[in-house]
Amino acid sequence: MRSGRMIAVTAVAARDRSRDRGVDVSDCAWFDDPVALARSPEIDVFVELMGGAEGAAREAVEAALAAGKHVVTANKALLARHGAALAALAEAQGVSLNFEAAAAGGIPIIKTLRESLAGNRVARVYGILNGTCNYILTRMEREGLSFETCLAEAQRLGYAEADPTFDIDGFDTAHKLSLLAAIAFGNRIDADAVYVEGIRSITTADIEAADELGYRIKLLGVASRTDTGFEQRVHPTMVPKSSPIARVDGVTNAVAVEADFVGRLVLSGPGAGGDATASAVMSDIADIARGDIVGTFGRPASALEPYRQAAMRAHEGGYYIRLSVYDRPGAFASIAQRMAENGISLESIVQRRRAPRADAPEHPTPMAPQPVILITYDTTEAQIKDALDRISVDGHIAERPQMIRIEQFA
Amino acid sequence: MRSGRMIAVTAVAARDRSRDRGVDVSDCAWFDDPVALARSPEIDVFVELMGGAEGAAREAVEAALAAGKHVVTANKALLARHGAALAALAEAQGVSLNFEAAAAGGIPIIKTLRESLAGNRVARVYGILNGTCNYILTRMEREGLSFETCLAEAQRLGYAEADPTFDIDGFDTAHKLSLLAAIAFGNRIDADAVYVEGIRSITTADIEAADELGYRIKLLGVASRTDTGFEQRVHPTMVPKSSPIARVDGVTNAVAVEADFVGRLVLSGPGAGGDATASAVMSDIADIARGDIVGTFGRPASALEPYRQAAMRAHEGGYYIRLSVYDRPGAFASIAQRMAENGISLESIVQRRRAPRADAPEHPTPMAPQPVILITYDTTEAQIKDALDRISVDGHIAERPQMIRIEQFA
Repeated sequence: MRSGRMIAVTAVAARDRSRDRGVDVSDCAWFDDPVALARSPEIDVFVELMGGAEGAAREAVEAALAAGKHVVTANKALLARHGAALAALAEAQGVSLNFEAAAAGGIPIIKTLRESLAGNRVARVYGILNGTCNYILTRMEREGLSFETCLAEAQRLGYAEADPTFDIDGFDTAHKLSLLAAIAFGNRIDADAVYVEGIRSITTADIEAADELGYRIKLLGVASRTDTGFEQRVHPTMVPKSSPIARVDGVTNAVAVEADFVGRLVLSGPGAGGDATASAVMSDIADIARGDIVGTFGRPASALEPYRQAAMRAHEGGYYIRLSVYDRPGAFASIAQRMAENGISLESIVQRRRAPRADAPEHPTPMAPQPVILITYDTTEAQIKDALDRISVDGHIAERPQMIRIEQFA
Repeated sequence: MRSGRMIAVTAVAARDRSRDRGVDVSDCAWFDDPVALARSPEIDVFVELMGGAEGAAREAVEAALAAGKHVVTANKALLARHGAALAALAEAQGVSLNFEAAAAGGIPIIKTLRESLAGNRVARVYGILNGTCNYILTRMEREGLSFETCLAEAQRLGYAEADPTFDIDGFDTAHKLSLLAAIAFGNRIDADAVYVEGIRSITTADIEAADELGYRIKLLGVASRTDTGFEQRVHPTMVPKSSPIARVDGVTNAVAVEADFVGRLVLSGPGAGGDATASAVMSDIADIARGDIVGTFGRPASALEPYRQAAMRAHEGGYYIRLSVYDRPGAFASIAQRMAENGISLESIVQRRRAPRADAPEHPTPMAPQPVILITYDTTEAQIKDALDRISVDGHIAERPQMIRIEQFA
């Protein structure tokens, strides 16, 4: 490696000794117990690639740190749950706990936030942190396919797990976001406190409407400094087509940072995969080999503060609303009235009668629901939710309203 | 600063003591001579922001390193000329010579290449490294304005110098590219050996033709590993509209790295300006404060090797050729014949009769030159140059042929 110091893999622990790993590990000592490996006097650095917030991964990492070994990990779940305690342990032992591979794979966002932006005050970090979701949304958009079809495709291609919940419901993104926020803002990691919505509810109708209105829909993780505290949220987001983040397609990840000195920095690259993980892990090992011991989150672990969480109801922004409205006199007027009552101004309204199908009766019933799309000016989440609750009760709509937050970028 | 160590500006040297710098430096010791400041026992780190490859900047940086001070510089000209020698001096003294601000401003490309990609073998580094050129090309494209008009606008807005040669003729990009190639490939810095073409020759006709063919024109610096050595070249480049680099507009810079493990990584952000420079300089200072002493180019200075320069004539790629062809029988056949003789296959040919101007005679002379655009399949620079030389001699064209290299991205 270019670090100028010989680095050797001396010992390995894994479940299956016989599996072909594409590299020869026959010269390595073999441990059946990762905790025993972590404590082995033969190693300087313990690299944890098992995954999982508890069990063997946690025990082995704790054991390694307690034994004064540096640790490199790609385990976002472990760090999202126990990051602060592990960082404190590493600090007490004077060793590194590095985790470049745990967020956004091969993109060096950890090092960038922790070191390159050390002199900046970060205002917002946001990004596409889950390749599975971005792959699904990209295919839905390009091919007009349903969410379910694209998910099945992603599973077939190995981009999505058999149980895809962790990815598509946004939890994976929330874990990664909580790690980025710890470095960017010094927020104590609390993945459970992240507001999370996944992409299951997104329909091709939403994607087509977004396109017409000049937006694309992405699952974003957004952490930002606001007047009332910090927001950490994960949800499908309408982003202007002209923004760099809108142009990130397929399994690619991207992270943007807005900060006082650097303005806006955008990094894009592979978010997952063995090679991308290897690139990040090697970077962490090279730092250790060079003797660069950085605080895990770029500051003493004791300096991470419980984050002053801005209430999601106080979130301000534009909103996209799609309603399925019964086509009868007064229905739209009633909806418009509810918006006005809640102080919500509408930037655009798209009401377009569905083209009648060839087999449809010549005079469709006037009650048939028609899609109505509303784009609001900036308003609060509380106002929108209240308006939509009232609209639902009024009975002019046939389905639960669809609501997608709009994010603007300077 | 988040580095956990107090950092103070203790002394300053500048020409004009009275200028308002927006910050209070009255507590700092004032030096009229930067070399004296560089040797002052009161400082640990010397930050050089004077510029220039020789004179005060060089003397002061050499003096600081010789006195065992760390140096942080934004001076690409100095490093492009004397980088290897200065890096060797820093190494001998056990101090850092950091230069994140010297290439691509606020984009942490130096740290990324040097540290984050330490375990990768880099195949190609390319980017938009000059905001002035990108601003001009973006405006030409968006507004259909001539190069001269856009340059004047850039000068009015302070994006271009009164003497714009250094920027628009590509030398600034070449300096930065030679620094990136030193880290990416271990090439000894030799900015004079970089093949350089600027953007003066680009016309709105080229930009329009590129647009029709699915390309945009960018001034790229490209350093790549080839079978015969390393290419380092700076020239206007046709890039596919779908590539991330094509979508970088205005004064923004972007750098892409292609490497074995990470695949493709793209970083974009502010390439110039006081704040972006400050961000990068603070990053370099924070590394020093943390005690992270990295070899200037990510390896011992003695390991930089004179680079096995791949001959530009051996460069392979697609080419865009715009010819102004006399509209007479046999002209096009002769051109096509010359291409074929040189073994060049054409991917597309666009010949479109110029719309007659309102004041043009009803039957324009058949001799009036008409634009012909050719896009070749991959061929060598030698073949293209030879074909164009022959075509010029044949006398069917009214102007020197325009030739723009096409760069493809995986």
